[in-house]
Amino acid sequence: MYGRYTQDLGTFAKDEAARLRLQEGDTPRPRRPSELLEYTQGRCAPCRVCALQCQRFLISKVGEDWVFLILLGLVMALVSWAMDFAIATCLQAQKWMYGGLDTNVLLQYMAWVTYPTVLITFSAGFTQILAPQAVGSGIPEMKTILRGVVLKEYLTLKTFVAKVIGLTCALGSGMPLGKEGPFVHIASMCAALLSRFLSLFGGFYENEARNIEMLAAACAVGVGCCFAAPIGGVLFSIEVTSTFFAVRNYWRGFLAATFSAFIFRVLAVWNKDEETITALFKTRFRLDFPFDLQELPAFAVIGIASGFGGALFVYLNRKIVQFMRRQKTINRFLMKKRLLFPALVTLIISTLTFPPGFGQFMAGQLTQKDTLVTLFDNQTWAKQGLSDEFEYLGILEAWRHPRSNVFVTLVVFILMKFWMSALATTIPVPCGAFMPVFVIGAAFGRLVGESMAAWFPDGIHTESNTYRIVPGGYAVVGAAALSGAVTHTVSTAVIVFELTGQISHILPVMIAVILANAVAQSLQPSLYDSIIRIKKLPYLPELGWGHHEKYNVRVEDIMVRDIRYVTLNCRYRDLQQVLHSTKMKNLPLVESAESMILLAHSYLSLPIPSHPCPYLPISPHPSPSHHITSHSIPPHSIPSYSTPRPVLTPPSLPRCQAQGTAYHKAKRVRISIVEEMILGDKMTPAEILEWEEQQLDQLVDFSSAKIDPAPFQLVEHTSLHKTHTIFSLLGLDHAFVTSIGRLVGMVSLKELRKAIEGSVTAKGVKVRPPLASFRDSTASTSDADTTALRQLWDRHQHHPMPREASPGGEDDDDDTPKGQ
Amino acid sequence: MYGRYTQDLGTFAKDEAARLRLQEGDTPRPRRPSELLEYTQGRCAPCRVCALQCQRFLISKVGEDWVFLILLGLVMALVSWAMDFAIATCLQAQKWMYGGLDTNVLLQYMAWVTYPTVLITFSAGFTQILAPQAVGSGIPEMKTILRGVVLKEYLTLKTFVAKVIGLTCALGSGMPLGKEGPFVHIASMCAALLSRFLSLFGGFYENEARNIEMLAAACAVGVGCCFAAPIGGVLFSIEVTSTFFAVRNYWRGFLAATFSAFIFRVLAVWNKDEETITALFKTRFRLDFPFDLQELPAFAVIGIASGFGGALFVYLNRKIVQFMRRQKTINRFLMKKRLLFPALVTLIISTLTFPPGFGQFMAGQLTQKDTLVTLFDNQTWAKQGLSDEFEYLGILEAWRHPRSNVFVTLVVFILMKFWMSALATTIPVPCGAFMPVFVIGAAFGRLVGESMAAWFPDGIHTESNTYRIVPGGYAVVGAAALSGAVTHTVSTAVIVFELTGQISHILPVMIAVILANAVAQSLQPSLYDSIIRIKKLPYLPELGWGHHEKYNVRVEDIMVRDIRYVTLNCRYRDLQQVLHSTKMKNLPLVESAESMILLAHSYLSLPIPSHPCPYLPISPHPSPSHHITSHSIPPHSIPSYSTPRPVLTPPSLPRCQAQGTAYHKAKRVRISIVEEMILGDKMTPAEILEWEEQQLDQLVDFSSAKIDPAPFQLVEHTSLHKTHTIFSLLGLDHAFVTSIGRLVGMVSLKELRKAIEGSVTAKGVKVRPPLASFRDSTASTSDADTTALRQLWDRHQHHPMPREASPGGEDDDDDTPKGQ
Repeated sequence: MYGRYTQDLGTFAKDEAARLRLQEGDTPRPRRPSELLEYTQGRCAPCRVCALQCQRFLISKVGEDWVFLILLGLVMALVSWAMDFAIATCLQAQKWMYGGLDTNVLLQYMAWVTYPTVLITFSAGFTQILAPQAVGSGIPEMKTILRGVVLKEYLTLKTFVAKVIGLTCALGSGMPLGKEGPFVHIASMCAALLSRFLSLFGGFYENEARNIEMLAAACAVGVGCCFAAPIGGVLFSIEVTSTFFAVRNYWRGFLAATFSAFIFRVLAVWNKDEETITALFKTRFRLDFPFDLQELPAFAVIGIASGFGGALFVYLNRKIVQFMRRQKTINRFLMKKRLLFPALVTLIISTLTFPPGFGQFMAGQLTQKDTLVTLFDNQTWAKQGLSDEFEYLGILEAWRHPRSNVFVTLVVFILMKFWMSALATTIPVPCGAFMPVFVIGAAFGRLVGESMAAWFPDGIHTESNTYRIVPGGYAVVGAAALSGAVTHTVSTAVIVFELTGQISHILPVMIAVILANAVAQSLQPSLYDSIIRIKKLPYLPELGWGHHEKYNVRVEDIMVRDIRYVTLNCRYRDLQQVLHSTKMKNLPLVESAESMILLAHSYLSLPIPSHPCPYLPISPHPSPSHHITSHSIPPHSIPSYSTPRPVLTPPSLPRCQAQGTAYHKAKRVRISIVEEMILGDKMTPAEILEWEEQQLDQLVDFSSAKIDPAPFQLVEHTSLHKTHTIFSLLGLDHAFVTSIGRLVGMVSLKELRKAIEGSVTAKGVKVRPPLASFRDSTASTSDADTTALRQLWDRHQHHPMPREASPGGEDDDDDTPKGQ
Repeated sequence: MYGRYTQDLGTFAKDEAARLRLQEGDTPRPRRPSELLEYTQGRCAPCRVCALQCQRFLISKVGEDWVFLILLGLVMALVSWAMDFAIATCLQAQKWMYGGLDTNVLLQYMAWVTYPTVLITFSAGFTQILAPQAVGSGIPEMKTILRGVVLKEYLTLKTFVAKVIGLTCALGSGMPLGKEGPFVHIASMCAALLSRFLSLFGGFYENEARNIEMLAAACAVGVGCCFAAPIGGVLFSIEVTSTFFAVRNYWRGFLAATFSAFIFRVLAVWNKDEETITALFKTRFRLDFPFDLQELPAFAVIGIASGFGGALFVYLNRKIVQFMRRQKTINRFLMKKRLLFPALVTLIISTLTFPPGFGQFMAGQLTQKDTLVTLFDNQTWAKQGLSDEFEYLGILEAWRHPRSNVFVTLVVFILMKFWMSALATTIPVPCGAFMPVFVIGAAFGRLVGESMAAWFPDGIHTESNTYRIVPGGYAVVGAAALSGAVTHTVSTAVIVFELTGQISHILPVMIAVILANAVAQSLQPSLYDSIIRIKKLPYLPELGWGHHEKYNVRVEDIMVRDIRYVTLNCRYRDLQQVLHSTKMKNLPLVESAESMILLAHSYLSLPIPSHPCPYLPISPHPSPSHHITSHSIPPHSIPSYSTPRPVLTPPSLPRCQAQGTAYHKAKRVRISIVEEMILGDKMTPAEILEWEEQQLDQLVDFSSAKIDPAPFQLVEHTSLHKTHTIFSLLGLDHAFVTSIGRLVGMVSLKELRKAIEGSVTAKGVKVRPPLASFRDSTASTSDADTTALRQLWDRHQHHPMPREASPGGEDDDDDTPKGQ
């Protein structure tokens, strides 16, 4: 089900792996100071000492978190600013071309259409060739990575380059695409690359737990420097990527995002774009009377409508993807001509927005940024319900149409942009959906605001007519509500405050965002979760709003009881049988089939013993030690292997990706070994069979087996709630269930998902009789536990049934008076 | 060490307890519908059906989270508004008295001093009598409760009443005290009471996990409706109370806090205090050019100085408490006259702020609210460095002094308020320190701002002198920075935006807050952590900033290896020995001393068997079944007990409070039983001794023992980082360490604390040789694990040393070629 992505085994194992990697010495270079000492050998002694001390000081500082975060913020600000600059240039070039050709409509149209088509096609082709991982938003993948899953090739330099260039071209085309999702991904890649670079100076960046913390901070930086919104960035990144958030990492995100946003805005000042640091889409609403209390229902309506709209957007987006996948003829054709689909979509969208054509009814000539600026405008466009009373200036001109009014333009804009955005975000280029949705939301808010302004031309407040309705405020509310609904976040509220530089509409925004979230969350998953499901990434759904019946579900209600296990005294034949009967990659190791005491959580792989196999009749080579990660081969059955060098498996247990392939590789290797033996060593197949049979009767030698002692055993009464917590916090994909040390079942992500999304109810609570009817009054230990313990105890007694055999011969545990 | 507070065993056990309580049927009342049916029996049938359906619908809704949150928000808004109203009335009364007596300075002084003294003394006395738990801030205790520790009497109606009335009086006195800490506590009590009230309608509110989630939301509501700052409230409450935050609870906090803030501000509008909903301390800074880039160093200076100031405040506050405790003579005197200390402190502070006296140099006549309003004022007070050029209006008058300038007033204000606030917050009344610190920070910011304005009278921007420096902006920055430094939070930044209704200074505020946090966190714990340590509440320190060397510490470096355990086949004598040799309340239960396989995490208590003891020679009463939670008595050694009714222990394992007392009670009971036996049953002491000796040789019957199967076993390689996560997330206070199922050690909160705060280094990593030097190449399993597993395996072989005995007789595990 998980397709190409395989699941991590938990961060514990990862810590272990990171450490083992450290031990193996594959990265920790010798610390610089000593190198430097050699380098400065030629100079005078005080100089040397001084340089050495300086160096040592610097190196000790390089290891500090804040240095890393400041560097990350700086790099990301530069990247963000450079990209913005390039995108602005691209957009200006299009405008210039379009403006220059205003003598001929056909030429104008050609320029208007060709330019984005070429850019998008180039972007799609470039990403496809360099790194297909760069396609799409990146937030779903980061969410998965932060859960502890390793996605291959996802944080490399190649992907970074592909994403940056692809995104610049895609946004430069003027399509309704966003940049905040890709920015999260870019910042994460930046962090990964930076940490790899800084680890040249010491081993500080080897720790996997630390790297995950840094990635979480990087996500905040991504959003933060995209919108120059540090607080909103931190909160948004937490909401979309984390399930549990460590408050101690809070400051990391704030530090990096603030620094990044600061540099990003300072660059604008230095470039003389701005006079000083202000908000990106500054609004100038009046402060003393931002809105009337009686306007609140209108804001609530925006919220609820945005909730439905957001759910519809997610649904539409998913349906388009699914439609493209299901239509086999289309699919086959598009697979052949990979660049045709992007080109086609771009062609359609840019044709429809062509300003002299249909674009005139939907402000088609405005870029996304200009659209937002105009929508957040302070003035009321539709005084007295008539659009033409108002003097449109500058870019506001685009919203006016001589033969229609502003309401029509807004409605057309919303409807057209809605499906265009949903369609455009399915193009295989690096792109997000936040910004398009934000713009649509702003337009919807503006529409409501203009309607209100037309309805109450002098404001609602009856006593004085000085406080008119501010439609721009409605646009802000709409933007926050719709983007909140699509992403299932509340922090879009904070983002709009930081984007507009005004917080006066805090209550309407909060109310609308919360209502939008309530509606959207009850209808559809968030856009990112939807993509996670489409891409079949391993995920764990949230427990959701008000699932109070779920609080009573226990592990015993959802666990799989029929599981395969390996005993400590099993033979290779048993092992083979078990391995044939299950697809599980990790088997529990129990003491014996009778006691069922769970010894180790995961029984991962059996090594080929490092000593010459004592039972091997024909040993063609002086036996080397090797070690193949595989379950399907009883290790002794591979008598030897031709490489004299020890073949080490990657010691990283969590790298399931690697392990998964190793597993299959091992299968293939085994075949080739056997073939080699047959061909090279002239053993007859019958001999080999006989030898294998012999081997299979041996006891399995666990003494050099790979054991993952991850200690996460659940008990039957663990609540679903707590299980969810443990799974999401530790990034587990399965856990065994024990009862007083005895293995009784297993819960995997699948069961958990089923329980959360499906119809599992708390059977245990209903079936179990109330305590009062128990005969045994010591029932604070549950039934099952007591029984298990009693069995254990009984087995350990020297006389098998101690009570019957005891002097006096009383009845066992019987409270009922028998003729006393 | 933990004093009166004892530690919970983890939420797992708590879930279990909650469930058992449910089974016992101590609360789940019969659902209302059936009752209602009986009630409406007399009416017509359709009415009955209709009423029943309505009722059922309402009840099903009552169980929903959002209903609870809305109710909570509503109640808290009403409480907050009513308290604000009462406080304002109190303060006005003082002002009125002071104003009315302006003919006689002595009478004025008497009124000025007596009024607060009476109020504070009443508050202290009232809280002392009704509920001493209501004293102080409440945030430290809520932090502890949210970790899963049960604090007795902390969320009751009595405490609620004491806190509300005590806080109103304390704040009405005009002392430099805050209300946000107590509001967090009040909101939590509200939530607890509301959930108890709503559970009358059904069993929804029985679940402990859910209640903890609701408490977390309540904390957000507390801050949110105190400052009318929903976003800041949610973030602040997360930062001060949580270690790990479940993002799925985010919306709860936002919903409740937004609704609460909304109602709180709507009440102000309805009361005609305000024209519409706006910020509490609205500022009117210019939007187009809020600050110059070159002012940023000044903001950074405010941040750094606030960091030092915040650390000093925490230090001072702690030293005052410690001084009062250490000085035995003072202490004894004060203990006798409990109300003397509050009265004395109030007297000193109010004498010093007496406006005609010293108060004229420190704006003594202003209330906290007025002070903030004036400090955030838009105008520059010190034009050209001369205070008297500016026309002071209204309450601003207080800052002017004819014989000094505004700088002197500000400096005196800061210095005096600093120690006054630190002192006042040690008074045993319900009070917080946030607001006083906030005001001091604002004054400090204003001081810097006025200095800058005096230094650059025409603004720094050289090209145009239209943009003057805004000292009010500096005050906002200072307030956020100092309160952030004292509480170690970043979200004070958001709180100031919401309080002032302007976000234009976002970058300076963020920079100052982050710098203040960096400085303060490296010097002192936060105020709340400091109080936690003073009160000796069970706590777990944060991992802190950039402790990269801690990433390498493993459980094996910190665990206690020498622990007592109980085996499955032990005798009561062994048990007695173990119990005498350790103070641990929870013993690990292992299979046997040889295998050391850990069966259950905590071995909590041994019951007295429910059947008549078969070995008892003299049984004075028909043996009843009873069950005493105790370790120190081998249960059989108490032959019988006089109550015929079974004595059930409270089934709640986590209620350690209860268990701790039960433990001591059991000890006493035992003595009394033995005495009773001696006196009542005429057994000679020798007979009893002999009987006891006999009993002690019996095998312990675990079959009806209380077992806590909490599955949290660590392994030796678990990192400190991960251990910290698990402990803080699951609220553990100890966990056993296993290696392939074998018990090897234990880690408790104490060891963990030591490791985090102290000097434990990663011994394991240094001692362990690199992998290359291992003879065994299959070292992905660690040494210890392999050894353990090998021993286990060896023991399970039918031939004890399989390799030596195997045909062929090769050397064991030897890679070195021996003359091959």
